[in-house]
Amino acid sequence: MTTEGLSITRSPEGIPSPATGARVVADDRAHLFHSWEAQGDVAPIPIAGAFGRYFWDYEGKRYLDFSSQFINTNIGHGHPKVVAAIKEQADRFCMIASTFANDKRGEAARLISEIAPGELSRVFFTNGGADANEHAVRMARLHTGRPKVLSAYRSYHGGTSTAISLTGDPRRWANENSANTTANVSHFFGPYLYRSHFHATTEEEECRRALAHLAEVIAFEGPDTIAAIVLESIVGTPGVLVPPPGYLAGVRELCDRHGIMFIADEVMSGFGRAGEWFAINAWGVTPDLLTFAKGVNSGYVPLGGVLLSEAVHETFRDSAYPGGLTYSGHPLACAAAVATITVMREEGMLENAARIGERVLGPGLREIAERHPSVGEVRGLGVFWAVELVRNRETREMLVPYAAGGAAARPVDEVVAACMESGMYPVWNYNRIHVVPPCSITEEEAWQGLAILDAALRHADKYTV
Amino acid sequence: MTTEGLSITRSPEGIPSPATGARVVADDRAHLFHSWEAQGDVAPIPIAGAFGRYFWDYEGKRYLDFSSQFINTNIGHGHPKVVAAIKEQADRFCMIASTFANDKRGEAARLISEIAPGELSRVFFTNGGADANEHAVRMARLHTGRPKVLSAYRSYHGGTSTAISLTGDPRRWANENSANTTANVSHFFGPYLYRSHFHATTEEEECRRALAHLAEVIAFEGPDTIAAIVLESIVGTPGVLVPPPGYLAGVRELCDRHGIMFIADEVMSGFGRAGEWFAINAWGVTPDLLTFAKGVNSGYVPLGGVLLSEAVHETFRDSAYPGGLTYSGHPLACAAAVATITVMREEGMLENAARIGERVLGPGLREIAERHPSVGEVRGLGVFWAVELVRNRETREMLVPYAAGGAAARPVDEVVAACMESGMYPVWNYNRIHVVPPCSITEEEAWQGLAILDAALRHADKYTV
Repeated sequence: MTTEGLSITRSPEGIPSPATGARVVADDRAHLFHSWEAQGDVAPIPIAGAFGRYFWDYEGKRYLDFSSQFINTNIGHGHPKVVAAIKEQADRFCMIASTFANDKRGEAARLISEIAPGELSRVFFTNGGADANEHAVRMARLHTGRPKVLSAYRSYHGGTSTAISLTGDPRRWANENSANTTANVSHFFGPYLYRSHFHATTEEEECRRALAHLAEVIAFEGPDTIAAIVLESIVGTPGVLVPPPGYLAGVRELCDRHGIMFIADEVMSGFGRAGEWFAINAWGVTPDLLTFAKGVNSGYVPLGGVLLSEAVHETFRDSAYPGGLTYSGHPLACAAAVATITVMREEGMLENAARIGERVLGPGLREIAERHPSVGEVRGLGVFWAVELVRNRETREMLVPYAAGGAAARPVDEVVAACMESGMYPVWNYNRIHVVPPCSITEEEAWQGLAILDAALRHADKYTV
Repeated sequence: MTTEGLSITRSPEGIPSPATGARVVADDRAHLFHSWEAQGDVAPIPIAGAFGRYFWDYEGKRYLDFSSQFINTNIGHGHPKVVAAIKEQADRFCMIASTFANDKRGEAARLISEIAPGELSRVFFTNGGADANEHAVRMARLHTGRPKVLSAYRSYHGGTSTAISLTGDPRRWANENSANTTANVSHFFGPYLYRSHFHATTEEEECRRALAHLAEVIAFEGPDTIAAIVLESIVGTPGVLVPPPGYLAGVRELCDRHGIMFIADEVMSGFGRAGEWFAINAWGVTPDLLTFAKGVNSGYVPLGGVLLSEAVHETFRDSAYPGGLTYSGHPLACAAAVATITVMREEGMLENAARIGERVLGPGLREIAERHPSVGEVRGLGVFWAVELVRNRETREMLVPYAAGGAAARPVDEVVAACMESGMYPVWNYNRIHVVPPCSITEEEAWQGLAILDAALRHADKYTV
């Protein structure tokens, strides 16, 4: 892999002063409303610049990006070839309505079709992952003529109405209180051996019992009422849950048996995160619909989309598809996608992500787990890892309870603060720290980040009993 | 207004060959799924370039853009200062998570607050107009603790679940068949004197009766069950329906009386389209929530958002707002918004839009109406006009019936084809042609476009009886 242009030594040129940083925060606090937070709690770090696997604030403090921002800058920041492609397209034109054909839009769709599982070769471009899932569900409902959708507890599918209704984490709850959900979604449990819903003791048993559970849910919900099963190929934010071998093939088989559409949500797991273009490729399974966003252009320009099977596409050959959006197939976003896919190929970023997982993050995190009584389990692959923290390894009691905030979240908050203090920025969710750096990370950078995490975990160890 | 850099004489440099255009269409037809259409009917024109108020295809055929694409490129194509701002930001960094503060994100929010009605000064950035409406409704429901939302027949609020449920045009219907709607939306009729639901004969009577109708709907739906009334300040796609004086103030008064949130949808009507930053400013009315997208950065980078009142913001000061999205406040999109608002100010584009409406589009369309028996009414302001076509001026029978497609739509399809043949690209919807050029259009260009429309309307006249 060439790292040309991705050197971590590039200095943060012309760092503005702390006074400038204070002005940036003042604008933010006067005028910006933040996602998922109590606005009174918001105290954002002002970011002055970003390059490669680093970003820095207005005091020149640099952070190794173990978060890929929102697990989406898979090629790292400021890749010169993608930046050049954006600038070139901006010089041509930025916006052309999706009524027309556009070279970059068509090329992006063709490249995505080339890396897609099986025969999926039709792309509907959206603005992000949430509306991709909205449209995939709509397509499935119209294709099957059935109303219901099944999705998993421990899942996240986006913030708009249908997407949040599909979601199986606490972000759904407050929306249900506001009567803002879509009817006809039922949730089931997926495989998760460390906290098995099925009292299983081996991966094989977990897989078999999880499929039996799903089969029984289908039977009792009524197979003929179910349009789709929506699943993250690897569950992301709720825990980096890698399905056991055979699980996704088993879901595929259940879908085939009952005429149910299999929607694979690859918003977080796609585009190199798991060392594959799409995580589901690792198991050789082809869904009927596949949703993507985030890594498709590393978030350089907002973009998401749905890949459709020919059979679903055929449903809308003679009758209009009742959905759309102003920015569908936005030329600037698609130009960035074409460049991103191209540099990921040229620089072997999937292979690098897989190698980093096998040679650094896997062994490194397992070493860390041995040293820290607060680590219950580490799991993942590629650049997609979770460190699950527990109060006690025997009882597996979560170090921070499910859905907890405030003081109850302090043990993990302290770990995160220590990571940041030492110049590494991770992702965290309840009792877990996620290690999700860009696919372009070097072995040296990965080891550096793990060393910071290792030191920070002493704060979690204090809370073990 | 300076038109530096916006010259229409810039030639389409290096027009690719028709063979290239054929390849672009081939990619499109092999891989792209289009919005709102039967995929078998899609036959897109491949677009090679765009600049100012023109775009052109691969055979060098140039179109005067009377559509602003999806009524969103309000500053025209390729504005050099906005392109420069995008390129400059791309060189710094493209994506920083909304967890952090970012200078362009804060500056965009501050500029939008400056031009917002009343005290609205908090901005939640989304990807587009649909999710802006989703989040505004969610905020209103959580703020009031009430479940129901009222919206208008003849409206469009976006393609995601809540947004399409709010919508009052046929795009909602197929989604209801697929059980993909959100409960608790009721529709009412707004003012539209030409086809009065209230048997009114004057604007004043229409206004009074429309408010009485809304008041009675509120009474029968139950005031304490209603979280919000969602209204396009000027109804866009369903007809460019400019509310009579007093209507929006009357809605505001009804909302105040019953503790209902007034959500103004300014996705299409904002950012200069009506000669104002927000159309509602013309009537001096301040909503509780205001949604925007499209013109905010002329679609150069996907962006939308919600403006919140302090009271709504206060609801989420101590309790988390249950919504969010990966690309919220995307730096590249916000940099484009800052530049767009700045050039619109510097170049007097609002004043130009208003002047074009008063000096060219208004008088020009009224002249056209006199000459063509197929024109029932022309209405609008700024660069936001509708030409309503009828089979007969006495009966006002629509030239194309509501919700009609296929052969029934032929009279308007012929008008559109004639416009395109002559190098002008309009917007059309059932029995209407909409004239919605960029705010930067010159008087000469506007007259040229009207001349093309004038000639094309002979195709509509053939169908009058």
